[in-house]
Amino acid sequence: MRTGGVLNILGKLLIVLSFSLLTPIPFSLYFGDGMVPMFLLCAGFGALLGIAMAALFLPEKELGYRDGFAVVVLSWVLFAFIGALPYYFCGAMPSFVDCYFESMSGFTTTGSTVLSQVEVLPASVLFWRAMTHWLGGMGIIVLSLAVLPLLGIGGMQLFQAEMPGPTKDRLAPRIQDTARILWRAYLLFTLLEILLLMLGGVSFFDAVCHSFATLATGGFSTHTASVGFFRSAYVETVIIVFMFLAGVNFSLHHHGLSGRLSAYWRNEEFRLYVWLSGGAVLLIMLANWHYRTYIGFGDNLRTAAFQVYTVLTTTGFGTADFDQWPAVCKVLLVALMFIGGCAGSTGGGIKVVRFLLFFKYARLQLRSLVHPRAVGAIKMGHVKVPQEVMISILGFFALYIAVFLLASLMVTALGVDLVTGTTAVIATLNNIGPGLNLVGPAQHFGHLPALAKVVLVICMLAGRLELYTLAVLLTPDFWSMARKPVWRWSRRRKPATSPG
Amino acid sequence: MRTGGVLNILGKLLIVLSFSLLTPIPFSLYFGDGMVPMFLLCAGFGALLGIAMAALFLPEKELGYRDGFAVVVLSWVLFAFIGALPYYFCGAMPSFVDCYFESMSGFTTTGSTVLSQVEVLPASVLFWRAMTHWLGGMGIIVLSLAVLPLLGIGGMQLFQAEMPGPTKDRLAPRIQDTARILWRAYLLFTLLEILLLMLGGVSFFDAVCHSFATLATGGFSTHTASVGFFRSAYVETVIIVFMFLAGVNFSLHHHGLSGRLSAYWRNEEFRLYVWLSGGAVLLIMLANWHYRTYIGFGDNLRTAAFQVYTVLTTTGFGTADFDQWPAVCKVLLVALMFIGGCAGSTGGGIKVVRFLLFFKYARLQLRSLVHPRAVGAIKMGHVKVPQEVMISILGFFALYIAVFLLASLMVTALGVDLVTGTTAVIATLNNIGPGLNLVGPAQHFGHLPALAKVVLVICMLAGRLELYTLAVLLTPDFWSMARKPVWRWSRRRKPATSPG
Repeated sequence: MRTGGVLNILGKLLIVLSFSLLTPIPFSLYFGDGMVPMFLLCAGFGALLGIAMAALFLPEKELGYRDGFAVVVLSWVLFAFIGALPYYFCGAMPSFVDCYFESMSGFTTTGSTVLSQVEVLPASVLFWRAMTHWLGGMGIIVLSLAVLPLLGIGGMQLFQAEMPGPTKDRLAPRIQDTARILWRAYLLFTLLEILLLMLGGVSFFDAVCHSFATLATGGFSTHTASVGFFRSAYVETVIIVFMFLAGVNFSLHHHGLSGRLSAYWRNEEFRLYVWLSGGAVLLIMLANWHYRTYIGFGDNLRTAAFQVYTVLTTTGFGTADFDQWPAVCKVLLVALMFIGGCAGSTGGGIKVVRFLLFFKYARLQLRSLVHPRAVGAIKMGHVKVPQEVMISILGFFALYIAVFLLASLMVTALGVDLVTGTTAVIATLNNIGPGLNLVGPAQHFGHLPALAKVVLVICMLAGRLELYTLAVLLTPDFWSMARKPVWRWSRRRKPATSPG
Repeated sequence: MRTGGVLNILGKLLIVLSFSLLTPIPFSLYFGDGMVPMFLLCAGFGALLGIAMAALFLPEKELGYRDGFAVVVLSWVLFAFIGALPYYFCGAMPSFVDCYFESMSGFTTTGSTVLSQVEVLPASVLFWRAMTHWLGGMGIIVLSLAVLPLLGIGGMQLFQAEMPGPTKDRLAPRIQDTARILWRAYLLFTLLEILLLMLGGVSFFDAVCHSFATLATGGFSTHTASVGFFRSAYVETVIIVFMFLAGVNFSLHHHGLSGRLSAYWRNEEFRLYVWLSGGAVLLIMLANWHYRTYIGFGDNLRTAAFQVYTVLTTTGFGTADFDQWPAVCKVLLVALMFIGGCAGSTGGGIKVVRFLLFFKYARLQLRSLVHPRAVGAIKMGHVKVPQEVMISILGFFALYIAVFLLASLMVTALGVDLVTGTTAVIATLNNIGPGLNLVGPAQHFGHLPALAKVVLVICMLAGRLELYTLAVLLTPDFWSMARKPVWRWSRRRKPATSPG
């Protein structure tokens, strides 16, 4: 690892982030919550730290494979630290662990909160909270479509050829191109949702914050009652549509917005995503109709669709307390939690495509048992899936189970009860937001022991970075190859090979 | 599939089973419960049916690959039917679905019961109940070490070369050899446990029934309070030791009894089984010591070890109500439920070896991310694991998740609550016995809807036959290749190829 080069890049990224810390200022001025000096201070601190890092360490022309892992993980860790400062200094959250939890929950688009009443935060800090979602969401898309495929993480290699642009092996130009292209769709959908929500009578502030949280599949709301606060079928419907869109691979949106609408349906993962969510909505409607949970067809459809998409895309908004629903609905919703959105979307979870390939392999295996001499291959679209990709996915599932188990053991060992502990891990590892019982939709994570919060912060990060990115950084092998950083003042000419 | 040949074999196996229906008669005479005519009738019916099948359908010299699947699945289905007759005709269980559930639970060594009080059954029928475990356990060992490796099910190919004896591709001679060898260890351990239990003051009847249930990792007891009935540290310790032994690959016992004791520790799966269970016992002891659940060191150790082995080996005996234990212990025990025993043991679950290979692949994947150009391979002992085996295991996990989810949805859709429904599926699919809540250790399965019991019976069978054996039989492809049976009276010379 080129330690100096990595720190240099992190410094530059930090400078960019510091600018975003200025965006809450107009809201602070409008609402008069007196947070302007605080945000200026935080932005200044972030910018100074970033400038110092960029100045102290020399940039490197070529950043390699291993540096990619370090930049990805450390940028999330560092951003969450800087992003936690406004929570800490606004005075509403005295514990820094809580602030870091809230900030990491924002940047990883998880949406778990330590606050029992979100209204205690000043409006501008609530806006910052939504902003962390939005920035995190954009980061995820670029990460999953440009960085992870090159790093070969957990089957994401499949998407290596999906994006237009130069296909050189260098990270930087490719990431920039991809970001520029995807930026369009992400921004367009956000603006569209803000507009549609405002047409439904939602205030500009609420519309912006909820749109940020929807497109990032985050789930932070400006109200403790979440989307239920609006009591509006229109608002819920708009949010359902944009949750659905946020759960789709953004490279498909790029094609779609370029006029190639057929790209959607030609994509196998998208088709499964539609069938799966459609089937789940139908099943839940049937069960709720049978048990007479909801009377009208429209109410039933909307409530079922909202819960299915809030869970499947790992957004975590709430409108109905589905803990009161029939057991079959709960089994279905818990299953959807693990599936998550499509790869290349802002959604968390294991991802639809991994399950798709997983079950294709099971079918192939079954066929090869009936016809032992038949030769089969797994295809996605018209492309044969290489053995390595399947093995990556196998490894991903193994690591997923290991992390889930280890984290559950640690959280429950700290005295948290069984259902609360395990669903807190599920909710953070899949970047959903609320769990069940004491961390259920109407509850919060604030009362958990501080050490449990630290474990859950690591779960959020691990889940968001597709496990392997973080796991690689924890191997001793990785660090044994780290080079000492090159400080700027240690710069000197290379010793000439010829004497004199 | 050679339908006639399969039915012929099934008939012959049924005749053998019918003899075992005579074994409860001495107990019936001794206890004077008046069940002698009933058992004679059941044995007679089974024998007649078997003779009819063997007589009506012609045997085939060569039974193939696909016939193996049919024989395995249909023998369990048929045996459970014949085994259910004593429950039905003894008068204590009026519903035949309940009887079939109890019988399948016996033959699959699951140990789930529909009875709230097992003492309502006559002593000889209780003996028959334990006998179904013992026969099922023997069947499983032969199945997993001789039949499944040849059929290539879910990675069991690994054990293809483990057993001595001719390695021809024909099923029958190999199965007979393997059965003969393993029979020794199984019988020896059973006799030893009977003896040791009797030395502890347990009656001959109880000692036989509990030894049958231990070696088969079944879990049926002759008392509603299970092993807790004896209130004896000695009895519990003996049962812990034999549960441990029953969870080990029986081909290792074959080597061990032949004097090659080092074979145990040289086996990687065995080592993981020891470390895993040892670690779990230690963790549970620590938690129970911290929360002061048990006072003495001996009590703490024995209770922890009993619960770990009853769950890990999927036996399902009870001594302590671990629903009252700290949450961290419950998380650990639920995780152990999925792992199960070693392959080639009588234990159920996913099997230690599959997890071992699963995590070896995750580690390889991690290493290949740090060193992209390094070439790695998975080894078990000193043998390289072929890619096909890993793919089989991947398929196994996929099918496992699918079956678990589908069964949970079906059971909860029938009105069963969430925890009861999902843990009932876990308990039957992993062949453990009790679940949690309304099917917990102190409860039973009798109150579930009849349709839910049917689903759970299929789960027991699917879990016991490593999923794929049953799944293959459910594919249309399998049946499209079935031949019409050759009836004995339709026997005639093959038409000569030359005219005249």
